[in-house]
Amino acid sequence: MGRNVTRKLIDTHLVEGEPTPGVEIGLVVDQTLTQDATGTLVMQELEALGLERVRTEVSVQYVDHNLLQADERNAEDHEFLRSACRRYGIWFSKPGNGVSHPVHMQRFGVPGKTLAGSDSHTCAAGALGMLAIGSGGLEVALAMAGEPLRLVMPEVWGVRLIGELPPWVSAKDVILEMLRRHGVDGGRGRIIEYHGPGLTCLSAMDRHVIANVGAELGATTTVFPSDKAVQWFLDSERRGRDFTELHADPDATYDVEDEIDLSTLEPLIARPSSPGNVVPVREVAGEPISQVVIGSSANPGLRDYAITAAIVKGQQTSDAVSFDVNPSSREVFEDLTRLGATFDLIAAGARIHQAGCLGCIGMGQAPASGRNSLRTFPRNFPGRSGTREDSVWLCSPETAAASALTGVITDPRTLGIRYPVLPVLRRASVNKSMLVPPLPRPQAEREPLVKGPNISSLPDFAPPPDHVEAPVLLKVGDDVSTDEISPAGARALPYRSNVPKLAEFTFTPIEPDYPRRAAELRDHGGHVVVAGDNYGQGSSREHAAITPRYLGLRAVVAKSFARIHWQNLANFGVLACEFTDPHDYDRIDTGDTLQLDPPDLKAGREFTVTNQTKNERYRVRHRLSPAQADAVLAGGRIPLLAQGSR
Amino acid sequence: MGRNVTRKLIDTHLVEGEPTPGVEIGLVVDQTLTQDATGTLVMQELEALGLERVRTEVSVQYVDHNLLQADERNAEDHEFLRSACRRYGIWFSKPGNGVSHPVHMQRFGVPGKTLAGSDSHTCAAGALGMLAIGSGGLEVALAMAGEPLRLVMPEVWGVRLIGELPPWVSAKDVILEMLRRHGVDGGRGRIIEYHGPGLTCLSAMDRHVIANVGAELGATTTVFPSDKAVQWFLDSERRGRDFTELHADPDATYDVEDEIDLSTLEPLIARPSSPGNVVPVREVAGEPISQVVIGSSANPGLRDYAITAAIVKGQQTSDAVSFDVNPSSREVFEDLTRLGATFDLIAAGARIHQAGCLGCIGMGQAPASGRNSLRTFPRNFPGRSGTREDSVWLCSPETAAASALTGVITDPRTLGIRYPVLPVLRRASVNKSMLVPPLPRPQAEREPLVKGPNISSLPDFAPPPDHVEAPVLLKVGDDVSTDEISPAGARALPYRSNVPKLAEFTFTPIEPDYPRRAAELRDHGGHVVVAGDNYGQGSSREHAAITPRYLGLRAVVAKSFARIHWQNLANFGVLACEFTDPHDYDRIDTGDTLQLDPPDLKAGREFTVTNQTKNERYRVRHRLSPAQADAVLAGGRIPLLAQGSR
Repeated sequence: MGRNVTRKLIDTHLVEGEPTPGVEIGLVVDQTLTQDATGTLVMQELEALGLERVRTEVSVQYVDHNLLQADERNAEDHEFLRSACRRYGIWFSKPGNGVSHPVHMQRFGVPGKTLAGSDSHTCAAGALGMLAIGSGGLEVALAMAGEPLRLVMPEVWGVRLIGELPPWVSAKDVILEMLRRHGVDGGRGRIIEYHGPGLTCLSAMDRHVIANVGAELGATTTVFPSDKAVQWFLDSERRGRDFTELHADPDATYDVEDEIDLSTLEPLIARPSSPGNVVPVREVAGEPISQVVIGSSANPGLRDYAITAAIVKGQQTSDAVSFDVNPSSREVFEDLTRLGATFDLIAAGARIHQAGCLGCIGMGQAPASGRNSLRTFPRNFPGRSGTREDSVWLCSPETAAASALTGVITDPRTLGIRYPVLPVLRRASVNKSMLVPPLPRPQAEREPLVKGPNISSLPDFAPPPDHVEAPVLLKVGDDVSTDEISPAGARALPYRSNVPKLAEFTFTPIEPDYPRRAAELRDHGGHVVVAGDNYGQGSSREHAAITPRYLGLRAVVAKSFARIHWQNLANFGVLACEFTDPHDYDRIDTGDTLQLDPPDLKAGREFTVTNQTKNERYRVRHRLSPAQADAVLAGGRIPLLAQGSR
Repeated sequence: MGRNVTRKLIDTHLVEGEPTPGVEIGLVVDQTLTQDATGTLVMQELEALGLERVRTEVSVQYVDHNLLQADERNAEDHEFLRSACRRYGIWFSKPGNGVSHPVHMQRFGVPGKTLAGSDSHTCAAGALGMLAIGSGGLEVALAMAGEPLRLVMPEVWGVRLIGELPPWVSAKDVILEMLRRHGVDGGRGRIIEYHGPGLTCLSAMDRHVIANVGAELGATTTVFPSDKAVQWFLDSERRGRDFTELHADPDATYDVEDEIDLSTLEPLIARPSSPGNVVPVREVAGEPISQVVIGSSANPGLRDYAITAAIVKGQQTSDAVSFDVNPSSREVFEDLTRLGATFDLIAAGARIHQAGCLGCIGMGQAPASGRNSLRTFPRNFPGRSGTREDSVWLCSPETAAASALTGVITDPRTLGIRYPVLPVLRRASVNKSMLVPPLPRPQAEREPLVKGPNISSLPDFAPPPDHVEAPVLLKVGDDVSTDEISPAGARALPYRSNVPKLAEFTFTPIEPDYPRRAAELRDHGGHVVVAGDNYGQGSSREHAAITPRYLGLRAVVAKSFARIHWQNLANFGVLACEFTDPHDYDRIDTGDTLQLDPPDLKAGREFTVTNQTKNERYRVRHRLSPAQADAVLAGGRIPLLAQGSR
């Protein structure tokens, strides 16, 4: 039986387990990627592990999240990261060089390689025929130390693309169509692999859009073949030597099969406040808007900005609209300027911002309460924009640009102009000056870590007692995101290197009083959280596991978990278990005391939870591998490693 | 006797008093300028005054301060200001259009006119032969309502410029030389008027640099003649019709005379943390730096960015340096892009930010603690950058660019390259699309004010009791700035429209406990502040008078006051008085109870302060005009107006 691309990538990197869906496997990690909001903890973990130098082929630390620098803390994080890169042999991408995902693709991505990244959109590198997986920071730290990346082998979901995109419809609409069909958990436990003749109309950067936003389907990752489009891209980046072809065998099969006829697609838009709320733009046309933002790793390519510029060229954006443009990378900004498109954007009234994530992770550009903001971003979870009562919509650059001109949501096909034909840039402005290479070994070993006043060390987590008996402090619904557990935004993000301080923000978007009440219970057995489906979706931040754990979270009982967050909970010693019968969820109330008596986590997966308040019993199951069970029993992976070294 | 330019400007606008130094005069205001950080209060004041429509020739509301939008409050301020502009007949300069001072000069400045602005750098418009005065917001609100602007007639300080600037020395070095000679209060009670043959080598935008930073000398304003350079500038802005010539008479004299031979100047730099700490760059060359920022209204011209781009072109800025470029206006950014200089900056590793004030008022770009940051800004007061323990230096674009390349403070003459010759742009990219004109009258009168949840109304200030008897809650030294009284920065600025909330930040850079202790005393007679020389220097923000007043400040006894803040105190009913014998300052301690018994503020200027704790008596004097005395006795100008309308 022929192999698909996913299977080939796994086979060449497999060091543990059998690649059968549901079985845990271990993979060699060739490359890692960290960003600053998760990276400061990763560097603290490398320090705790006593690492001398990274053991990967390439590890890159990007500074793309905390760029506002409203006080000294951001700049101190940057100095700390710079020093850690010098110490451990890591590339350092300076603030302003751009968002990790497009920069990594431009400068480091290699077909056939594996990439682990402490950012949920790491999967974007699947556009180049890589197996790129977003993980918690500790997974990435361990990969940097040479450990295999462990995951449960997902199903492979083959999506065959046929036909060709019509004018005014672009890659973003392809992934919005996937979200329209399957929702925000349609990809859970799966790797999405695109194939078929429709691929020929998608450039490598178009595929980046699709692979990037694939994270919003809950997929483990997305994979594309490495073909002529990839070769063209690497040539344009003067890295033609890094190209290798990688195709599915002609008789390859997939665990799940799907098909999209690109020629039938139309401009789509996700309504507030979930990437899964997708409707055709024409159905919501005419809604007044106050803001349009072009940017983020979801639409990071030169073409995404160039098409925007071409649409607004010679015209003026609406008086009522703030038209914000965030270049995704310095390289794209340089090329855009070379093409004259930067000029067209400024002339049309754009506020051009430094290259980075910015509004996409709530660092600035927050809209007014209740006013519609259209963004080319991947996510619109409630409050992620920085505005509590926000109203954020997700769409393509074409739809965003058309709406910026009119001041209302506009199907770009109704603008009455010809779909612009963009110039082709055969050679990108390759410019590595904001990328600082690793120091050679002897020099690196003498480098100190520069820790400003806001850089803490990891807190010590004591091993938990044998069983959990604690109240349900919080009961939440479906699809709670890590943004709601540990908020991003300008208030919280500067504390990403300071767990005790960051903990004060835990769950505050849902329950402002949670941190105080959790802290009160911490030394009296802690507390439990009960959740619905897809708990912990969204960003990969391990802070969403660490800060509740720091405040005494002992267990989460949920209908189901999002993959990365589930893994982060295990890494930091929180027991995550799922209801055998989802209806039991409805029987538990906030304040009930639950007793969890997992007999032997390694022997069986099912056990009983007793509701002492209601005198009821529920069956639950965990999905921990033996290694993960050890970690949970020890209070987390770092205490476990510490036990091993004693 | 021939008249100087200042006297001509005053004579054509005088409606009250005699223009003799020390005597209060009233001037007709032709134009006003407000920015968002002070403007939301101005609009609330227009509302409190019941104004129907502004009575000036031109009034413009800029949005240049609060651009980070870390949450919904900035955007809600913008919506409120936009609605107030529509309501009252005011131009609205959208966020991203740039800093008020250069934009006003480009689009609205007219030689021979008066301008009142609620920003201390309003004086920059003196570059065009205007009399441009920065005032508290209430002064500007009253000017918009058609009231004359009242001020004590200053001395006119004639500074004769001779010779020509050598290579690598530019306008910023001229004003740094003034600060080196005369310090941060050398201009108090004076208008600086430049004249002489040296003017021919200074363009209108060069003069803007000198007039703008003239605020740091404490001067009332700075005035230049309107000559060929102004004509050339207005022509390039397609406003040649607005040009009129305005020169001093050949036999004009000045109250004070000074001279600078431009050919003798060298690159200068202000050390942390005062614009008055000026030394030659060569004396501090070699100091390592972490950040360089090009921007602000102190160096806003196309040439300031173009010279920076020319110096770094084809080279890379240092690995250790964050190289930040803030275009001052959309027009300059557009021109810079047209010239190719934007490309050169990006290629050299610049982080390009949206057009606005940004780091200059502590909105982002905060450096790491204790690390040197070089900026082309006007001010480096402690903590103004957003970093408590900051180390900010002020210099020319030439010095900043050279230092960005080397990573250490560098005299640009030592770079070993030829001083770049810049292209001349005879026509600026005139583009008014981010400037929204006033609505016509009938439509304007139907416009509602849009007040988001963070927009408060002005608090009610009750009239004070007959005498002050209260403890000294705070004793501060010389040169305390309004940044220290009511801090800017990303934490506080979003509350500029919300006095009760903003009050929680009052004096916190000096004494974090002040707001709490002041609030405790508020209903028990309030408190007094004792200060050294030049109290309230810097930014014009009236919040620095309103928030202490809100917390119960009854009087400030100081060695001397900065002009705008002194006026703001009077406007909001706080008694400001000066020691007759400055040595008495040393006899008072924090905690002493002072009793102030001004007999009749209108009858005499001197009265006695009794220190009840030490049983001592001090003589002090006030400088209130009869109208101001009425305002102080009524608890402020707004309560006084309310009394009048009863």
